[in-house]
Amino acid sequence: MREFEFIEWIRRQGEFDPEVVAVGPGDDCAVLNVGGEKLLLTTDQVLDGVHFSLVEHGPEAAGRKSAVRALSDIAAMAGVPVAMVATVAAPKGFSQADAEAIYLGLRVCGDEFACPLVGGDLAAWGESPGPLQISVTILGKCDGIEPVLRSGAQVGDAICVTGKLGGAWATRRHLEFSPRIADARTLARRFAVSAMIDISDGLAGDLGHVVDASSVAAELDTITIPIHDDAAGRKDPLEAALFDGEDYELLFTLPETEADELIENQPLEAKITRIGGIVAGSGMTLLRDGKREKLEPRGWEHET
Amino acid sequence: MREFEFIEWIRRQGEFDPEVVAVGPGDDCAVLNVGGEKLLLTTDQVLDGVHFSLVEHGPEAAGRKSAVRALSDIAAMAGVPVAMVATVAAPKGFSQADAEAIYLGLRVCGDEFACPLVGGDLAAWGESPGPLQISVTILGKCDGIEPVLRSGAQVGDAICVTGKLGGAWATRRHLEFSPRIADARTLARRFAVSAMIDISDGLAGDLGHVVDASSVAAELDTITIPIHDDAAGRKDPLEAALFDGEDYELLFTLPETEADELIENQPLEAKITRIGGIVAGSGMTLLRDGKREKLEPRGWEHET
Repeated sequence: MREFEFIEWIRRQGEFDPEVVAVGPGDDCAVLNVGGEKLLLTTDQVLDGVHFSLVEHGPEAAGRKSAVRALSDIAAMAGVPVAMVATVAAPKGFSQADAEAIYLGLRVCGDEFACPLVGGDLAAWGESPGPLQISVTILGKCDGIEPVLRSGAQVGDAICVTGKLGGAWATRRHLEFSPRIADARTLARRFAVSAMIDISDGLAGDLGHVVDASSVAAELDTITIPIHDDAAGRKDPLEAALFDGEDYELLFTLPETEADELIENQPLEAKITRIGGIVAGSGMTLLRDGKREKLEPRGWEHET
Repeated sequence: MREFEFIEWIRRQGEFDPEVVAVGPGDDCAVLNVGGEKLLLTTDQVLDGVHFSLVEHGPEAAGRKSAVRALSDIAAMAGVPVAMVATVAAPKGFSQADAEAIYLGLRVCGDEFACPLVGGDLAAWGESPGPLQISVTILGKCDGIEPVLRSGAQVGDAICVTGKLGGAWATRRHLEFSPRIADARTLARRFAVSAMIDISDGLAGDLGHVVDASSVAAELDTITIPIHDDAAGRKDPLEAALFDGEDYELLFTLPETEADELIENQPLEAKITRIGGIVAGSGMTLLRDGKREKLEPRGWEHET
């Protein structure tokens, strides 16, 4: 079972009332119309042994990661978080101190991003051999900025990213990143950003989502891709930047003229780099040493 | 670690902005003020081996139960569901067909209660020995009816329940119940319901939450407690009705005069029974064979 195939299958089932559901499954958040307000709703989870190691990283880091992953989805829509709820499935022998540490991990994010933890459920696996699992759902709002979808990339747009990519798992960066909420708001308020996503599955995987949703193609120039120091020791640092994932940087598209201004002025907290452009067609191409290669949209994907 | 102790601990941490968070952790849903609208947010989870058995009940029943548990929390506030999101942590070897069955279980509820599944995340435990776990979060709205909290019970109120209690685990009722959303709306619209909760932990446990939150005491008359046929074969059917839980019926309080009218007219789909009254003090008392016993608020509680 592949996660992306399953999401595609769900999307094909969908018949939503457009009065309520402005954007359904398949973007970083759902967009809902409630009482004249556009709201964002997103849920994400972390699993011990998959997204973190309880033994190595501890419960507080796990709690924090579960919250910032979901906050990064709110950032990817240029939204503002309102509140979060969480469920914790706790392994046998989990202590009150462990539960409190998870709560504190969530709470630190709540304080930092004005997103209080307003409810939750704690259950124990009991005799089942279940590891720690945390789900976080965040309600967000748009507050005067139209949500930026994956589907709006236009032929002729530049492709940009914030920060540097690759090797997040070599350090604690996959746990300790800061979701780009303020930067995303600045971008969407001041520039004609046409599409946006956060890089969780990897640059190739997430750009693949954008070009698929937008029915366009992308060309990336390998020279320009910003490679993180965390990937410097790798045999192929570019490969790390393209496929590792868990960077939680913003990947976005906007008209070339606006990209020029953005790159020159660098108005965000994070450094912005232009890495390529949107062209007609489908799929992705990598320009390397003057040659063109096909770039597969593979990335970090769950599979059972 | 005990779930209720942990929730109490979280509540003690809480300092919420009352402009945003009208009701924080500790009720069936959080109540949030967003753009002039009162919204409800609740999350719940089901664990294989704890809340269902994947082998015995199958993935579709697990999916359905995860959704109706959260819908029952919306009912307990007299709210209207708007949309749901879900995470699924899938065991090794989980197939696309299994994932689709979970989705269909969620979808059936979505169709029945106008609560579409608008997003989610599917992750696989991979090499970790993780069983199936499903979290569901529901966004609800109040639509002109003030949310009914646990904390409003008044001395002199009658205590009523919908339906019959006990033995839900002896049959598939814990999987196949229907959340009392329409009945809760009727109750709150037409009667001065002062407090409400859904019976998930058991009558004693959930009435315990109401009296604690309302700073009152309760007296129950054992003769009047409606015992479900599912508990008829038990050595002590009353014990089953008091402590089994997973009935997902409504437990509510309202002035005696209104209770008279309610019992006489029976305006709900579910039968309403008056089982006792709210008195001054704290804790709960059971009247049995003319004698008074202390009723402990124990119920079905997670503990590691």
